[in-house]
Amino acid sequence: MPKAVSEAKKYAEMNRQELEQEIVKLKAEYKKYQEMELSLNMARGKPCREQLDLSMGMMDALNSEADLSCEDGTDCRNYGVLDGIHEAKVLIGAMMENKPENIIIYGNSSLNVMYDTVSRAYTHGIMGNTPWCKLDKVKFLCPVPGYDRHFAITEYFGIEMIPVDMTPEGPDMDQVEKLVADDESIKGIWCVPKYSNPQGYSYSDETVRRFARLRPAARDFRIFWDNAYGVHHLYDGQQDYLIEILEECKKAGSPDLVYKFSSTSKITFPGSGIAAIATSLNNLEEIKAQLTYQTIGHDKVNQLRHVRFFGDIKGIKEHMKKHAAIIRPKFEAVEEILDRDLTPCGIGDWTKPKGGYFISFDAPEGCAKAIVDRAKKAGVLMTKAGATYPYGKDPHDSNIRIAPTFPNLHDLRLAMDVFTVCVRLTAAEKMLKDMA
Amino acid sequence: MPKAVSEAKKYAEMNRQELEQEIVKLKAEYKKYQEMELSLNMARGKPCREQLDLSMGMMDALNSEADLSCEDGTDCRNYGVLDGIHEAKVLIGAMMENKPENIIIYGNSSLNVMYDTVSRAYTHGIMGNTPWCKLDKVKFLCPVPGYDRHFAITEYFGIEMIPVDMTPEGPDMDQVEKLVADDESIKGIWCVPKYSNPQGYSYSDETVRRFARLRPAARDFRIFWDNAYGVHHLYDGQQDYLIEILEECKKAGSPDLVYKFSSTSKITFPGSGIAAIATSLNNLEEIKAQLTYQTIGHDKVNQLRHVRFFGDIKGIKEHMKKHAAIIRPKFEAVEEILDRDLTPCGIGDWTKPKGGYFISFDAPEGCAKAIVDRAKKAGVLMTKAGATYPYGKDPHDSNIRIAPTFPNLHDLRLAMDVFTVCVRLTAAEKMLKDMA
Repeated sequence: MPKAVSEAKKYAEMNRQELEQEIVKLKAEYKKYQEMELSLNMARGKPCREQLDLSMGMMDALNSEADLSCEDGTDCRNYGVLDGIHEAKVLIGAMMENKPENIIIYGNSSLNVMYDTVSRAYTHGIMGNTPWCKLDKVKFLCPVPGYDRHFAITEYFGIEMIPVDMTPEGPDMDQVEKLVADDESIKGIWCVPKYSNPQGYSYSDETVRRFARLRPAARDFRIFWDNAYGVHHLYDGQQDYLIEILEECKKAGSPDLVYKFSSTSKITFPGSGIAAIATSLNNLEEIKAQLTYQTIGHDKVNQLRHVRFFGDIKGIKEHMKKHAAIIRPKFEAVEEILDRDLTPCGIGDWTKPKGGYFISFDAPEGCAKAIVDRAKKAGVLMTKAGATYPYGKDPHDSNIRIAPTFPNLHDLRLAMDVFTVCVRLTAAEKMLKDMA
Repeated sequence: MPKAVSEAKKYAEMNRQELEQEIVKLKAEYKKYQEMELSLNMARGKPCREQLDLSMGMMDALNSEADLSCEDGTDCRNYGVLDGIHEAKVLIGAMMENKPENIIIYGNSSLNVMYDTVSRAYTHGIMGNTPWCKLDKVKFLCPVPGYDRHFAITEYFGIEMIPVDMTPEGPDMDQVEKLVADDESIKGIWCVPKYSNPQGYSYSDETVRRFARLRPAARDFRIFWDNAYGVHHLYDGQQDYLIEILEECKKAGSPDLVYKFSSTSKITFPGSGIAAIATSLNNLEEIKAQLTYQTIGHDKVNQLRHVRFFGDIKGIKEHMKKHAAIIRPKFEAVEEILDRDLTPCGIGDWTKPKGGYFISFDAPEGCAKAIVDRAKKAGVLMTKAGATYPYGKDPHDSNIRIAPTFPNLHDLRLAMDVFTVCVRLTAAEKMLKDMA
């Protein structure tokens, strides 16, 4: 496709006539894309087929000749073992940087674990405190932009969500500290501390330490630490480093302050991985007391399958390098196209993550919805504008989450070509309108 | 072991001296068992190793060369498909005698589905009715004796449990009809309609129809129909038949009255099977609306594994015949030993199920706890006395659940030898004491 920006000038420097010419050019370009009748999807953080193929060997890790017993002799095929087989705790513990004794292995979904954690606090309370369902008001802090499915859980339970600004170092801790100290109805905060969703930011050491040193008014305040991308690096040599929150909380004298979540969903197969929680022994005891009513145990055969496939944490790390090799070019393509098409126009800001599943894009204020709508009408599905904010409401109508992993590189480049046309066209129209 | 009952006389016909002699003899016999330092477990309905071996072929149903796509092209390895893959709905639907469109396939545990169903009603209510957590009083009917894990869920949510008498035809429907019609705070009833836990009774056609025709005062009353043993027959020729409750409810004009649960836990591997709910489209819609917040989807690879292993319902039925061949002799041994040792003494009553996982034993009133304690001290672990009643309280201290499947036949016979000695000794002592 011909690129409209070859002789580009910053939009902010354009006069009315130049903007009008630019819009005419962009509309023509957009029309050509529309005529292509595309159907491209960048809406969700889904692994692509080649990534899934990496784990096909796991299907051979257990066969009909295999001994499905644990190291301690437990027959994984039968009932029992509420909190997961020991070797799975060792493997996932190494991945989460926690001791096996601090871990419960669950079923296939860490989202389910988070939902159940909120639900348990709602129905039965945390450590003898009033169940949230019996309180007039329960609030959560939500660093924004953030993960829509987190916000959906708290919204579902009628929990009021208070946005907190994100920075490249993590949530604005001045805001967090003040809010939790002042308001006993604030019971939790959603965090994606490493390669955050959607920015790909990793919390600084200072941020993690300030989290550990929080002194919330509510005794049942908990940090919901969704370490979804702990081993999901894009670059072998340049990895973000996150200090370990459980250890920091212990040091700070608040061992029970955090629930940490993780899973192998974006390591093996989403939907057929294993999820886990890591937390203090006190929290674990309370969780297990509840879990006894909910289940006899999770899928131990699948736990064993993961252990046999990976062996140990080295196996996981090697595996993640293969994922990186597949998706790194996709992230690079997105960044290249954004840079090629938008930098010359001085339009938009975006993150350049070293891991995770997303790039966060900020359009000029008031443009995000129109851009996403426009892309959709040209056959390119983006995450809904506003999705990265509680209640789906981005006050600046600016943030758009880009998920580069699922399409193949050709489709991805095409989708990004469409996207940047939509961004430029919408921005130019907005600027022209603002001149009026 | 020498049997003490060779020249037995009914205990009720014995005089004091004869009872005393019997007790001396039984104590000697009990002591011999104690000296054997046994460790036998009949506490839970667990399949034995040979039963688990039957499903090892499932480990080969999918391997690294397999195409893990559904018939509709969905890649089972990736995210998505909230309510289960279509072919799994067809398979489990055939097993549950329901249409695929009435089914949601869940994770590995029907207990978990039941817990979540109660939890959802507690946190969000059923079809626009007040969430149970906002009500002063919520009650459930509990046919007794029944399944301890059902009662545990309702107790955990602070739901008051009202016992209802079981008969060989099912719950006493006169009681059920009157109670639900009179009391709006009664929101549910726990049922194991086929090969009930612990009796192995199957509800009569009339009972099922009366359930379908219930007119509860509470609009959010639901029948929790745990069809755990739908295909778990012991005898090929003599099977209990249960009429289909969803269909009956529809006919009776109350399509939304029932949640039906099932799983493959005692078909393939407990803990690594697939569970399901079958219910009306209205109920399904509400459940799916909630499920969207809880998970992106359950383990589709495991769903596909089950489908590929069984093919269709015929595959399941053939498979269940193999289970029956393994466990039928165990049920027969229990019945033989109870009959051999207790019938001559006129002590105890027990059921003779044609399927399921349990035999229900009724000791003379006031003896169950002492019998189970005594067996435990001789190394034989039975289900806790009282476990089959809400709050663990059997008002007659009489019922004991016998779980014959897990031990091998030799151990099982030995455990039953010990058990019947404990029953006779405790009964004889009780009768002697009652003479005083």
